[in-house]
Amino acid sequence: VKEVIAVGLVGFGTVGSGVVRILHEHREKIRRETGCDVIVKKIVVRDMEKERAYPLHGAELTTCVEDVLEDESINVIVEVMGGIQEAKDYILRAFDAKKHVVTANKDLLAMHGEELLKAAAANGSDLYYEASVAGGIPILRGLVDGLASDRIQKVMGIVNGTTNYMLTKMTEEGMSYEDVLQEAQRLGFAESDPSADVDGLDAARKMVILSTLGFSMQVSFDDVDVQGIRSVTQKDLQLASQLGYVMKLIGTAEEKDGAVAVSVAPTLVPKSHPLAGVRNEYNAVYVYGEAVGQTMFYGPGAGQLPTATAVVSDVVTVVKHMRLGTTGKAMSFASRSKVLQEDSDIYSKYFLRVHMKDETGAFLALTKSFVQENISFDKILQLPLDDAKAEVVIVTHSTSKKQIQQVCESLDSQYMEMVSLYRVEGE
Amino acid sequence: VKEVIAVGLVGFGTVGSGVVRILHEHREKIRRETGCDVIVKKIVVRDMEKERAYPLHGAELTTCVEDVLEDESINVIVEVMGGIQEAKDYILRAFDAKKHVVTANKDLLAMHGEELLKAAAANGSDLYYEASVAGGIPILRGLVDGLASDRIQKVMGIVNGTTNYMLTKMTEEGMSYEDVLQEAQRLGFAESDPSADVDGLDAARKMVILSTLGFSMQVSFDDVDVQGIRSVTQKDLQLASQLGYVMKLIGTAEEKDGAVAVSVAPTLVPKSHPLAGVRNEYNAVYVYGEAVGQTMFYGPGAGQLPTATAVVSDVVTVVKHMRLGTTGKAMSFASRSKVLQEDSDIYSKYFLRVHMKDETGAFLALTKSFVQENISFDKILQLPLDDAKAEVVIVTHSTSKKQIQQVCESLDSQYMEMVSLYRVEGE
Repeated sequence: VKEVIAVGLVGFGTVGSGVVRILHEHREKIRRETGCDVIVKKIVVRDMEKERAYPLHGAELTTCVEDVLEDESINVIVEVMGGIQEAKDYILRAFDAKKHVVTANKDLLAMHGEELLKAAAANGSDLYYEASVAGGIPILRGLVDGLASDRIQKVMGIVNGTTNYMLTKMTEEGMSYEDVLQEAQRLGFAESDPSADVDGLDAARKMVILSTLGFSMQVSFDDVDVQGIRSVTQKDLQLASQLGYVMKLIGTAEEKDGAVAVSVAPTLVPKSHPLAGVRNEYNAVYVYGEAVGQTMFYGPGAGQLPTATAVVSDVVTVVKHMRLGTTGKAMSFASRSKVLQEDSDIYSKYFLRVHMKDETGAFLALTKSFVQENISFDKILQLPLDDAKAEVVIVTHSTSKKQIQQVCESLDSQYMEMVSLYRVEGE
Repeated sequence: VKEVIAVGLVGFGTVGSGVVRILHEHREKIRRETGCDVIVKKIVVRDMEKERAYPLHGAELTTCVEDVLEDESINVIVEVMGGIQEAKDYILRAFDAKKHVVTANKDLLAMHGEELLKAAAANGSDLYYEASVAGGIPILRGLVDGLASDRIQKVMGIVNGTTNYMLTKMTEEGMSYEDVLQEAQRLGFAESDPSADVDGLDAARKMVILSTLGFSMQVSFDDVDVQGIRSVTQKDLQLASQLGYVMKLIGTAEEKDGAVAVSVAPTLVPKSHPLAGVRNEYNAVYVYGEAVGQTMFYGPGAGQLPTATAVVSDVVTVVKHMRLGTTGKAMSFASRSKVLQEDSDIYSKYFLRVHMKDETGAFLALTKSFVQENISFDKILQLPLDDAKAEVVIVTHSTSKKQIQQVCESLDSQYMEMVSLYRVEGE
């Protein structure tokens, strides 16, 4: 094995420049770990002329991806360009050229993970993607290696930093959704089109990756029941707080009797729950194993250096495999056939707010709708809303998604307005 | 490679029987992961006659360790007998017989880790010990693999479940140290001789392992500055709470300018700090990396199945290595020479309680003692103690261990009594 391992970097934005910096600054530790010098030899950029804010530390810039793919001295490709089709094409060509690939591209992995992993294995190549989920937290390793001997029952976490920042500000500073979104955009935490974050799509892609690894089933994006935070109001947060809850955008993936359910939704957790204390842009993932019980992994969910650290740790793994001659032997993406839970099997507690006429018999009618569906109450709070109407806040005991849908229809038919409906987790 | 991997288990107590159970119950998942059936073939026990509470799932009992060491069909030894000298002897003999070893024995690793790792490498054997620190939390993997590319600056955590349970009860239920110790002993959380837990020795051994891995320096038990929780009083907890802190027994290991300091001590953390929310027998370890920032690993610190899960995950790793032909290639225990920090370089905030005469000039004299050592105050609280005396509670700004020692001497010489002195972390 060579004593210098050359890396080709595709993409030189925030994360890419972080990778160059960490490989440079931590060269001594990496040499201790791997016995090699790991250097970035070439960097593929879109525009040579664009002024670079970051030092190159000896790497050569090119606009031509073939310069990297056809360079036989380069063994490892780090893909941090983002996007899907082009990135996928490059990665497949890298495998054809018997190179190993490390990527931070969650969209690509969520969409084409299985195909890419098979192509890697077919070419004796490694493919690692720790940075694609929860930035600096080594959660994929935790799932695959650390809990290898356990049966994962549930994975639940805060996997999107932008929305967690927004919900933290809304909760702690009483800001409205619109104001906090503007602030997040101004600070660069949110994109000008915030949809991927606030509509839960980014979190859903991460849950695809986590649930596929956790349950060894090829879950796809369409299998995830996704709800974002656009409709979360201050009033929701305040009433939830009165009943002892904090709102978080939470992804859950659960297996029961061989079938899985994966969702992303604004969810209430008790204030004493460890996820309630995960603030601002931090991420945290809970893993429930049959034997181990509950474990949690916490850390920065994004950011230049945390994400680059995860990328470089994957590079270190690949380099170790190269030295050991064990590349291309990662376990396959999913060894079990996918089975999804029915709505009638997906159980949870729910928090709901109903507006109804403030008149004799209204509350009885409301109660009957729940009794009909065999749903019992854990907590109830009734408040006057205005002269004619009352607001009722209910936390149910555990009930199926199907039951709660039927209650919604029943209330609707009686002109009661379901203002908000959220899952409650962690009790 | 064979399709059945036989394990020899040395020790059949709580953890050992958990290992048998998990290997049995999760056989299908482990086969998916490794391509092999992993079975416990023989179990070494002290007493054949003793009635066994646990099923053997086909394993054969023996009182003779040679039955396992000389059985060529057994490739992996799991040592969960505890103790030091005998366990060390068995493990070394296992390496001589070219077997791989997984152990949960923190005392042994903290004392003889380097020697054992060298013996493993010399024989082409694997030695893994994830379960030795923080039971079910895959923290050693997190340090070694997940953060491989980062420079670890600090490791800080709650690594002893018994004392965390005790401090939680003292804090939340106002129980005295003596009462909570009795309860913990009654519930089986604490030994009849509780010294290893309450004097911080168990935590110190875990910090030896964490700091040796984190900094790649061979830290030894004697290098750890250890203080237990015997002297923690309700009054300490109440005054700390008034100033916004919670008491935890915390191990810290920090590197600064190439030198490390490792300690275990009752320590105050702000109520909003994530470690403050780690309750009862749970453990949590914070890792600060130069690039990644702060990450935390949380989970059960002990218990039959969590610990057994960590052991079996190590067995899975070893079996994968056997199939790949890469055993005996784990990186060495410590590649840098050990350098320890001087007391004058170890900085921290401190919380201290002083009793002094309640008379004009006393507070001025107290203040002068701190000014002399160039220590400034972050928070001060003075309360009358009795007719003649006052209690002053001080939280300092960051100051060196040497400075605080000199203040203690100065107060002592002026007949002021330093009632309590604790580090403050996490601000």
